[in-house]
Amino acid sequence: MSVAKPTVVVLGLGLIGGSLARALRSSGFSDRIIGCGYREPSLQRGLELGIIDEYTLDVAQAVSQADILVLCAPTLTVSDLLETILPMADGDGPVITDVASVKGNLRATALRVAGEMPAKLVLGHPIAGSERSGVEASDVSLFVNHRVILTPEPGNDPAAVALVRQMWEATGAEVVDMDVDTHDAVLAATSHLPHVLAYTLVDALAAAPNSDAIFRCAAGGFRDFTRIASSDPVMWRDIALANRDALLVAIDHFGAHLATLRDAVERSDSQALQNTFSRAKQARDHFADILVARSQGK
Amino acid sequence: MSVAKPTVVVLGLGLIGGSLARALRSSGFSDRIIGCGYREPSLQRGLELGIIDEYTLDVAQAVSQADILVLCAPTLTVSDLLETILPMADGDGPVITDVASVKGNLRATALRVAGEMPAKLVLGHPIAGSERSGVEASDVSLFVNHRVILTPEPGNDPAAVALVRQMWEATGAEVVDMDVDTHDAVLAATSHLPHVLAYTLVDALAAAPNSDAIFRCAAGGFRDFTRIASSDPVMWRDIALANRDALLVAIDHFGAHLATLRDAVERSDSQALQNTFSRAKQARDHFADILVARSQGK
Repeated sequence: MSVAKPTVVVLGLGLIGGSLARALRSSGFSDRIIGCGYREPSLQRGLELGIIDEYTLDVAQAVSQADILVLCAPTLTVSDLLETILPMADGDGPVITDVASVKGNLRATALRVAGEMPAKLVLGHPIAGSERSGVEASDVSLFVNHRVILTPEPGNDPAAVALVRQMWEATGAEVVDMDVDTHDAVLAATSHLPHVLAYTLVDALAAAPNSDAIFRCAAGGFRDFTRIASSDPVMWRDIALANRDALLVAIDHFGAHLATLRDAVERSDSQALQNTFSRAKQARDHFADILVARSQGK
Repeated sequence: MSVAKPTVVVLGLGLIGGSLARALRSSGFSDRIIGCGYREPSLQRGLELGIIDEYTLDVAQAVSQADILVLCAPTLTVSDLLETILPMADGDGPVITDVASVKGNLRATALRVAGEMPAKLVLGHPIAGSERSGVEASDVSLFVNHRVILTPEPGNDPAAVALVRQMWEATGAEVVDMDVDTHDAVLAATSHLPHVLAYTLVDALAAAPNSDAIFRCAAGGFRDFTRIASSDPVMWRDIALANRDALLVAIDHFGAHLATLRDAVERSDSQALQNTFSRAKQARDHFADILVARSQGK
């Protein structure tokens, strides 16, 4: 971990993995970036685009060459990968990190496989994405001014945590530490629950007797509100499964507030409605200000 | 109603009223557009901007001069206005229409005040808006390729319905007829329920113990999903009150689907989650195609 220019292996060369590879090369963080995965066409394309220096389909070989191994596979696949990789990566092995949307299930896998938190496994999650996917959509500036959450554990080697932090800082991201449970609760609230609500709303309306009129008459507000219901169903199925407990808490918290508002509507309680809507507007306007400031790098 | 160039009175000169006035002048539908309302500065500004030809603060005078009277006041105010205006507008009076988001409460007011549906009261609702408001934000092309829903009643004079239809077609809008109950159910589903969900989500998250981390870590998907929670709380309070019954049905329909999905998450029912998310994505992608086609005037 004292390597000046670490060799980075990106396992899974899609939007996130490809963007990370581009940013690490562009920033000079690494001079040797190896792609690894099961889909050779993506790796071949990454090589042609100059995003990676070489690639291998052999995970064991990739692990043996890496200073940093970044697991950029889908949420549930990362769990399977940890089962394969952790036994290969002993004390001299690479620092391992990931980009998956849920952290608790991966910690559980690691504890089960290794018996304790591996010193050099530092879980992480960049809060960045795009409606596009695949290595072709990768973007050197995808992470600039975006948050990356790291969830270091007491068993982690501080030098491993520092290296993962340096890697993300090299992409232009702002790195934030959080414990695993807080991460999963926060992501359930801000991302997984909204996806569940958007999917549920669109599915409920499609099942309504007047669904034709509904979709013919909906407009821009509905388009924005439901945009995330066009996300990949398999990816979101896996996230819902991986973050089950935190997602249930978030759904129930939301459900309780919805029940309260429903009662206010039923009672025609003008003041309660105005109070709720006003509080929400104030919080949402504050959030919008945060986002604007962040996009300006403040 | 055989007037070649009807005199149009816009009662309430804000975003919608101002945009309508601009479009009716620009299209040549009317050569005389009168503004009316309680806020003289808006009317004065409309005169300066050349949006209206004259204005009056006197509703009775406005009614007496109008061939078409368009009520562009907020939802609950329109109901009060009908109480004032309907007794003034006898058989020789103007055709009256409105732009409010809910129709059932206005029909109820009209029935109560007039004892039957007034022949020349044609309720309507343009599905168009903007995050901006006020006459300064008015836009001659606000309605181009947007839907306007008219809810003609059996008691309506067909010539009055035709005139209101011609007026909206002159703005570039596509006019759709719908019965009052369907309109209110469709708008509850596509607009009022999403606003309730967005307000509820933001309010619930603001009340959560980790709300600071939540708003710091939320990103673009959350911004789009919650944009409508920045809407005017008073306007949405009034819409919720005016469309109470249809909104309760929509909330309950949504709530039942959310409960089903929650159960699937709790059971880790992978297939049920994937089926729901896939159906929703398909419906949402179909809706996005409709919107794109409509924006191209197809």
